[in-house]
Amino acid sequence: MAHPFFKNNGPIKYSDILKTLNLELDNKLNDKKINNISDLFNSREGDITFFHSQKYIEAANNTKASYCITTSSLKKELSNNCLPIVVENVLIATSKITSKFYPDSINDDFDLSCKFIDDTNFNNKVIFGKNVLIGNNVAIGSNCSIGHNTIIEKNVKIGDNCSIGSNTILRNTIVEENVKILDNCVIGKHGFGFFPSDKLNLRYPHIGIVLIEKNCEIGCGSTIDRGSMSNTVIGKNTFLDNQIHIAHNVKIGENSIIAGQVGIAGSSIIGKNVKIGGQAGISGHLKIGNNVEIAGGSGVIKDIPDNSKVMGYPAKNIRNFLKENK
Amino acid sequence: MAHPFFKNNGPIKYSDILKTLNLELDNKLNDKKINNISDLFNSREGDITFFHSQKYIEAANNTKASYCITTSSLKKELSNNCLPIVVENVLIATSKITSKFYPDSINDDFDLSCKFIDDTNFNNKVIFGKNVLIGNNVAIGSNCSIGHNTIIEKNVKIGDNCSIGSNTILRNTIVEENVKILDNCVIGKHGFGFFPSDKLNLRYPHIGIVLIEKNCEIGCGSTIDRGSMSNTVIGKNTFLDNQIHIAHNVKIGENSIIAGQVGIAGSSIIGKNVKIGGQAGISGHLKIGNNVEIAGGSGVIKDIPDNSKVMGYPAKNIRNFLKENK
Amino acid sequence: MAHPFFKNNGPIKYSDILKTLNLELDNKLNDKKINNISDLFNSREGDITFFHSQKYIEAANNTKASYCITTSSLKKELSNNCLPIVVENVLIATSKITSKFYPDSINDDFDLSCKFIDDTNFNNKVIFGKNVLIGNNVAIGSNCSIGHNTIIEKNVKIGDNCSIGSNTILRNTIVEENVKILDNCVIGKHGFGFFPSDKLNLRYPHIGIVLIEKNCEIGCGSTIDRGSMSNTVIGKNTFLDNQIHIAHNVKIGENSIIAGQVGIAGSSIIGKNVKIGGQAGISGHLKIGNNVEIAGGSGVIKDIPDNSKVMGYPAKNIRNFLKENK
Repeated sequence: MAHPFFKNNGPIKYSDILKTLNLELDNKLNDKKINNISDLFNSREGDITFFHSQKYIEAANNTKASYCITTSSLKKELSNNCLPIVVENVLIATSKITSKFYPDSINDDFDLSCKFIDDTNFNNKVIFGKNVLIGNNVAIGSNCSIGHNTIIEKNVKIGDNCSIGSNTILRNTIVEENVKILDNCVIGKHGFGFFPSDKLNLRYPHIGIVLIEKNCEIGCGSTIDRGSMSNTVIGKNTFLDNQIHIAHNVKIGENSIIAGQVGIAGSSIIGKNVKIGGQAGISGHLKIGNNVEIAGGSGVIKDIPDNSKVMGYPAKNIRNFLKENK
Repeated sequence: MAHPFFKNNGPIKYSDILKTLNLELDNKLNDKKINNISDLFNSREGDITFFHSQKYIEAANNTKASYCITTSSLKKELSNNCLPIVVENVLIATSKITSKFYPDSINDDFDLSCKFIDDTNFNNKVIFGKNVLIGNNVAIGSNCSIGHNTIIEKNVKIGDNCSIGSNTILRNTIVEENVKILDNCVIGKHGFGFFPSDKLNLRYPHIGIVLIEKNCEIGCGSTIDRGSMSNTVIGKNTFLDNQIHIAHNVKIGENSIIAGQVGIAGSSIIGKNVKIGGQAGISGHLKIGNNVEIAGGSGVIKDIPDNSKVMGYPAKNIRNFLKENK
Repeated sequence: MAHPFFKNNGPIKYSDILKTLNLELDNKLNDKKINNISDLFNSREGDITFFHSQKYIEAANNTKASYCITTSSLKKELSNNCLPIVVENVLIATSKITSKFYPDSINDDFDLSCKFIDDTNFNNKVIFGKNVLIGNNVAIGSNCSIGHNTIIEKNVKIGDNCSIGSNTILRNTIVEENVKILDNCVIGKHGFGFFPSDKLNLRYPHIGIVLIEKNCEIGCGSTIDRGSMSNTVIGKNTFLDNQIHIAHNVKIGENSIIAGQVGIAGSSIIGKNVKIGGQAGISGHLKIGNNVEIAGGSGVIKDIPDNSKVMGYPAKNIRNFLKENK
């Protein structure tokens, strides 16, 4: 599937992939062409994928990818149609190959393609403030307003009836209809993802986007980072208060309410109808069920099942917490 | 009393009020006119008010309002001069009626009335940076400076000797003399107040303002929301550090000191001479006394009496907390 | 040593110093000239320093300063070459004298010296967005980019290969090579330092700077305050996520990783290779060792030795914390 925003530099020759990873060439396959990189679930025939943890054995067994970056111990789990490429560190190798397919996804320098909106053909279509900038590959629906000094950088789609505030920056983001994004937000920049290294950390590509579904509201001064391999998603009719930070790959379900200064770390999945009090924090890679209530100031460090009410740090059943802390 | 900022659409006919609430008309009263909406304490003869909780029985008994949105069980507590309008959900009905009186107070789209300051008559009076914008109904005292890219949206009064930083947005705010507001703040936007509803949350009006009294300082990246029915107030000579969030209807007394990243939830009342350490959070609808000290990182979930020192989550007497946590 | 940024108003006559402090003049010394003010460690012959706590007895004994603001009980500890100036409150007196040497360091009103970059000689040298502003005394290396609406205020040096985002403000800051500063940051403003006083708090001067060493990254919406007497330092190859607040005089070692919404209070020293999880807070004047890991949400209120892993509020050994909080 074509990426909605980042240009895919593929197909890339198999031999170029091996050279990038400093691996010995295999003369029979050198000229084979690889179309794209994706995860085990979403790869297609002709694509390359990666497999770094036993958690994904079933997916490895069923992947449609033709090539897979993996380790010598994991390679036996791969589908027969999938040729292993054995490396020491799967994630670093995957980062390097993703960078070859999507070189635009690593750095987030400011968008040089931006023009003043008066110099674009949005000037008749959108209600806009002073000094509004619009980058390449932007689409804006009907009946939208965009506030002063706001920068709609490249790769943004905004649906009908949206209101974007002032001093806000969007990039690599799809905004569905009837969404309000208030002032001073930064949405769609890369996440805090890199491989630490003593002299110079190695940033990995972020080829995901931010998707804000219909009827959402995003408060002032909030930051929502785009995903690395998957997307960051705010479900429909979910409201975020001011100064909230949503890290890369987070998915929040519909009809949720998130109060001021909450932070959600990378790759956590939040259910529907979830209420999160002010300043609560949720660690990365967690699953928070539907209809969960998390009290303000809580620190959540493990999964929370549906319909729970939790409080404390670490967050636990709210009744127990309050009983213990009378 | 005339509202300082929001235009009152009243008087509104009694029959229009009933129609808005889908109630049966009362032919004798249909043509009566209602001037304004206010709370039980501040309403005058000819106004409509609302009464939704037993906490306010005394105020209901003494209100000067001529009409009151309330429930069938509470209506008997009302003053004899006040005609009850019985509904199922008082707050939703109040929200609808407030919206009729003050239709401008619901949405906070960017202010289209803003002009470059060079094109206003402030250009001789204020020291200003590049790209400063000024909206309708703005007053600025003598000896003030306004930084680059700052937007003084509609409905702002700034006293003498004030310094406003760069990239800051003000709206619906009164700033007294000798106040410093630093960079990247958003002050006076509506609070995080709405009625949750599965398809589309219903925002309620915020007809309060933000009042920042004299000699205050507000740090970079802070957000202060205006009140819903009452005002959000920062008392004189109170200093706020960076990245603080003050929610709607909060009142902070004078000579208080609030360190970085503190959050205060809606409608809490903070006393005078209060010190709050960094990242502390205070839940909504609480009363924090005078001369209270709240340690950094604390989570306050109940009222705190005068002269207390508290720490922890939930915050308790600081000596006990430290003894229990050696 | 000449200050890199703030103009030193000295030399100042001894009699002027005494008058400022409302002290009786000493006719023999009135015309002596004092060159500069600095701390006990960095003062030179001809300078004035200050000494307010027994913690600094050794430094007082060895200082090269010729004059010292101190108390009657501490003055006996001073080097023989150093003349005591006895006051009631050393810090307030020091603040007043520092203000005389460095009057520009007290207030941080917006920088009126800024010009559009097109009107400077950076217009050929830097890749820049729309509406970029540059103040006096700015140097920018080769191969740098500066995003839309960003304000490089006075007293900033930026090394080669740096990327500054959009809507960001820098002042009194040295940025070494290969640094990325993302959007909506404010870096180099004065810290939250003042003497509380019932009618009008007294701000003290901040004559320190912010130093961001090479290869660092600073996330969106972060604030880093400059130092008061010493500098605020971010060590090389240290990465900060979004919405982080670093207070005045903080020093962070190299190769550290600090996740979103962390706050570090004034004058704390953080070692090398330190990892700090999201929303953690560190109190002021602490020493955090090398290779320390602080779990997200922790509140650190005492020094942490090298190689420790801590969690909780107050933060303690992570194994103990998790055992006690199963």
